[in-house]
Amino acid sequence: MVRPWPGPPPDPETARRGGPRLSGVQRERPSSMKLSALAHLLDGQVHGDGDLDFERPAHPDHAGAGDLAVAMQPELVERLAGSAARVGLVATGAQVPDGVLDAWVSVGRPRYALHHLTTAFAQAPSLAPGLHPTAVVDPSAEIGEDVALGAFVVVGAGARLGRGCRIQSHVSIGAGARLGADCLLYPGVRIGERVVVGDRAILHANVCLGADGFSFVTPEPGTVESAKASGKVAGENQALVRIHSLGAVVVGDDVEIGANTCIDRGTLADTRIGAGTKIDNLVMIGHNVEVGRSCLLCGQVGIAGSAVIGNGVVLAGGVGVADHARIGDFAVIGARSGVSGHVPPKSVWLGYPAVPKEQMVETYMLTRRLKTLFKDVAELKKRGRACPSPT
Amino acid sequence: MVRPWPGPPPDPETARRGGPRLSGVQRERPSSMKLSALAHLLDGQVHGDGDLDFERPAHPDHAGAGDLAVAMQPELVERLAGSAARVGLVATGAQVPDGVLDAWVSVGRPRYALHHLTTAFAQAPSLAPGLHPTAVVDPSAEIGEDVALGAFVVVGAGARLGRGCRIQSHVSIGAGARLGADCLLYPGVRIGERVVVGDRAILHANVCLGADGFSFVTPEPGTVESAKASGKVAGENQALVRIHSLGAVVVGDDVEIGANTCIDRGTLADTRIGAGTKIDNLVMIGHNVEVGRSCLLCGQVGIAGSAVIGNGVVLAGGVGVADHARIGDFAVIGARSGVSGHVPPKSVWLGYPAVPKEQMVETYMLTRRLKTLFKDVAELKKRGRACPSPT
Amino acid sequence: MVRPWPGPPPDPETARRGGPRLSGVQRERPSSMKLSALAHLLDGQVHGDGDLDFERPAHPDHAGAGDLAVAMQPELVERLAGSAARVGLVATGAQVPDGVLDAWVSVGRPRYALHHLTTAFAQAPSLAPGLHPTAVVDPSAEIGEDVALGAFVVVGAGARLGRGCRIQSHVSIGAGARLGADCLLYPGVRIGERVVVGDRAILHANVCLGADGFSFVTPEPGTVESAKASGKVAGENQALVRIHSLGAVVVGDDVEIGANTCIDRGTLADTRIGAGTKIDNLVMIGHNVEVGRSCLLCGQVGIAGSAVIGNGVVLAGGVGVADHARIGDFAVIGARSGVSGHVPPKSVWLGYPAVPKEQMVETYMLTRRLKTLFKDVAELKKRGRACPSPT
Repeated sequence: MVRPWPGPPPDPETARRGGPRLSGVQRERPSSMKLSALAHLLDGQVHGDGDLDFERPAHPDHAGAGDLAVAMQPELVERLAGSAARVGLVATGAQVPDGVLDAWVSVGRPRYALHHLTTAFAQAPSLAPGLHPTAVVDPSAEIGEDVALGAFVVVGAGARLGRGCRIQSHVSIGAGARLGADCLLYPGVRIGERVVVGDRAILHANVCLGADGFSFVTPEPGTVESAKASGKVAGENQALVRIHSLGAVVVGDDVEIGANTCIDRGTLADTRIGAGTKIDNLVMIGHNVEVGRSCLLCGQVGIAGSAVIGNGVVLAGGVGVADHARIGDFAVIGARSGVSGHVPPKSVWLGYPAVPKEQMVETYMLTRRLKTLFKDVAELKKRGRACPSPT
Repeated sequence: MVRPWPGPPPDPETARRGGPRLSGVQRERPSSMKLSALAHLLDGQVHGDGDLDFERPAHPDHAGAGDLAVAMQPELVERLAGSAARVGLVATGAQVPDGVLDAWVSVGRPRYALHHLTTAFAQAPSLAPGLHPTAVVDPSAEIGEDVALGAFVVVGAGARLGRGCRIQSHVSIGAGARLGADCLLYPGVRIGERVVVGDRAILHANVCLGADGFSFVTPEPGTVESAKASGKVAGENQALVRIHSLGAVVVGDDVEIGANTCIDRGTLADTRIGAGTKIDNLVMIGHNVEVGRSCLLCGQVGIAGSAVIGNGVVLAGGVGVADHARIGDFAVIGARSGVSGHVPPKSVWLGYPAVPKEQMVETYMLTRRLKTLFKDVAELKKRGRACPSPT
Repeated sequence: MVRPWPGPPPDPETARRGGPRLSGVQRERPSSMKLSALAHLLDGQVHGDGDLDFERPAHPDHAGAGDLAVAMQPELVERLAGSAARVGLVATGAQVPDGVLDAWVSVGRPRYALHHLTTAFAQAPSLAPGLHPTAVVDPSAEIGEDVALGAFVVVGAGARLGRGCRIQSHVSIGAGARLGADCLLYPGVRIGERVVVGDRAILHANVCLGADGFSFVTPEPGTVESAKASGKVAGENQALVRIHSLGAVVVGDDVEIGANTCIDRGTLADTRIGAGTKIDNLVMIGHNVEVGRSCLLCGQVGIAGSAVIGNGVVLAGGVGVADHARIGDFAVIGARSGVSGHVPPKSVWLGYPAVPKEQMVETYMLTRRLKTLFKDVAELKKRGRACPSPT
């Protein structure tokens, strides 16, 4: 039923062996692990027989008899009684009821332990080494050592791919684009012309780097300009013309970008994403934006043109940032807030328009008491009639 | 470097004959239908000559002389006077003015009638039967009977496609993924490794199932943890490391997923979408989320990690759901609301933060009267000066 | 007209020469320009030696010694002192400090000047002329003169591409779809069957035109219908069935659509986008929606089914429009607002639910003074105790 592909089909064995060099991720996950080894890996403590082993970590509800029930929160510890697992992983100080597990490991910092645990058991995406025979690579492109290109990948003129890059199927890499070493690109990623990506970047499916910025102008001032200037709509938008994007997108080392996220190129300068920043799915980053290092931009965040985001900033899900806004280092913006203007470093802001969190919470609590306030004032007005008029 | 392309081009005649098995949808739509047949199909009533026929259903404004003017709402009935159509479809009890139509059919439940009407006149997407010669299918993949694969489809090692699946061009199906019978995948869909999809699923263009969850941690507690715990930013995010996603995505039978929607894999368990649930475009569903059966998730909804959505839940456009939130069965959340915590079953909630709708409406109405309240209080203060002090 | 399948690989030299006919954009950008020529191009005025030239325009911070420092805002003029550039472009009336530039050009309308400047220096995307040998084109498709198709493009039966279209890699164009002349489609664009696009459209990567509308119904009234009618959830959603989309999507001339944006087909009529309208990334436009001419729809806007948007309307980032809402010509809706009902022409609205901007600002300002109001009322209540009761 499967047609022979002209040229040898990829060898399934090598396909299984291949895989990106995700930091610390093995090509094959271990078939089992002892609790003593787990405790060593996670810097934890064994309770009971450390020679007991397990096949894979699992949620207590879904764990089988050979699995490790991972129960880092108290509500999950309670579910251990209903779990088929005989060994578990809990937070230090967790009260594991008698008899629900034969042995367990406890760890002091559960989320960080999850990093080590899942790294040990993650499986690298399968991708045959070398260039798939269907890949279309411009002769002037430079392909580094040990690069794997999947089926139907297109690499444009003058593009450069660093050593060890793993490019899955259907990816397009535009002319003059550059990828650093050991990048992992999932299917359908679009890298625009002249876009630059650092080392070890992970780009999930259908990411678009380097669409043109959304920047248009009318020969005479249009409705937006008049609305911003006067609060009134004076002109009428007609014959919108483009301000072209001469810049590119520059993404630092160790950046991860979620599925279907878009980062537009800059107008005169490049749009920039700092090293170590992690971006979730369906995020929109406009032209000229600068995002600092080690930021977390959660799902559906939108950042309008020319905004500047500092280092270590966290934008929770759905946050919007207005054009030219500035967010200071290590600030945290609560979910679905709308930021304009300047947010100071290390502050926690919330709401639309976003304000310091404690201020937003206070306003919200007062708003919830409005009904009582209206009643009080109505009562005062009734009583007031008995008072003499101030005239 | 470009390999010669092998194989004969697809036969255009078979391309036109093919088409997915959408439930009840014919490969060719009927060239005409009589009003009597329409009334039978929709369980409706003919007014006038049931032998009159029409070529296709249309909006009254766009209907030609041979079309059926569909005017289910009173405002559309009013537009029948200006329509070229001579026959129509209206709701039971509609007052069709004299002379605007020669005959019509009336139905008791217009939206449900639209289901039957549009099913009869829908045209199945064209796709040649069999595997397009350019499709790249791993020899270890299992391809069911009567499966059609479009151009440039990639199917990974060990993947299984149920009988009757129609996979349009440029789709990638990862190693170990499984599709049930009679699924319809539009171009550019990305199915990650080990993702499972049930029978009769419809996945629109560029859907991504199985990107990694957005889950990172710092070796020492970072800004989010300190902001959540204390409302202050203490640490500084640095060296974010991944919590890998060991789980997959599991999608039930009869699920439909809109264009460019993303569903991430789970950390230890699978992210799950219940049977019969319908998801619109540009929706983001995070890792570990569980969505029940027969839910409606409208455009641009975002659901953060580990949230649990019951059965029959409706999330209107742009709703955000916080991580670990729980929404009870048959709850309805109004557009653009932000949900955290628990929403009881069969409740209607609204706002950010979302609260019961009547409470949100009350607060909103009070807010609109704030100006009057401020005036009242100012007046009371003036008068108060004439009162004796309480001291 | 369709080139025979397999054929020679594209000539890399012609690949570099090719490129779309973006209005006014040259295939090769100029290697340098004199200030006098710049002033002529932008209808500006030279200050100093007009014979000085520059290689490319740049942000003052990033400009090299051979570049033009573009400093249209006062804060950028201040940065000229730190710029390596010797020539610049400023707004009329700007005070360029002595010695920071050797010569400069001033212009009266900076944003419009940016249109001309960036057009002169933009570089057309590279794409080899003709049809790439890997493109799969149905023999019944009509491919206009001077069309370029990239690698792995699929064109369905009966589709028609106007002259001069530039279709980049991995694009799919469904059966019966039509593109006007000189369209530019970036990689991964999905054009559904029977979708119609006008002349000179620019569609960025992974745009989806023509997914099915999100339209479902239950045999008996479901939770949405009961919640809308009574504010209570009565029924239980079960067995959701589709209302199929018989209409298409019709996009006018000179429309630009951003990356990963989705426009769904209509139910009985077509979803329509007027000529000259510009749409940003990750925008969702539902079934039956009509958008007028020369609108600006910014990033992550969502428009629900059957809404009607007039001409020249501006929807700022993240705006949501409810189903069946109507927005009048030249209205401007502020960022992240939620619109339902009718918005009058030439009005500026804001908030959720959106109201006239001045009303929203007033309410917001009053809300910020709530704490004072509560204090005042508490004080009045204390004093009130000293007043006689109204009984």
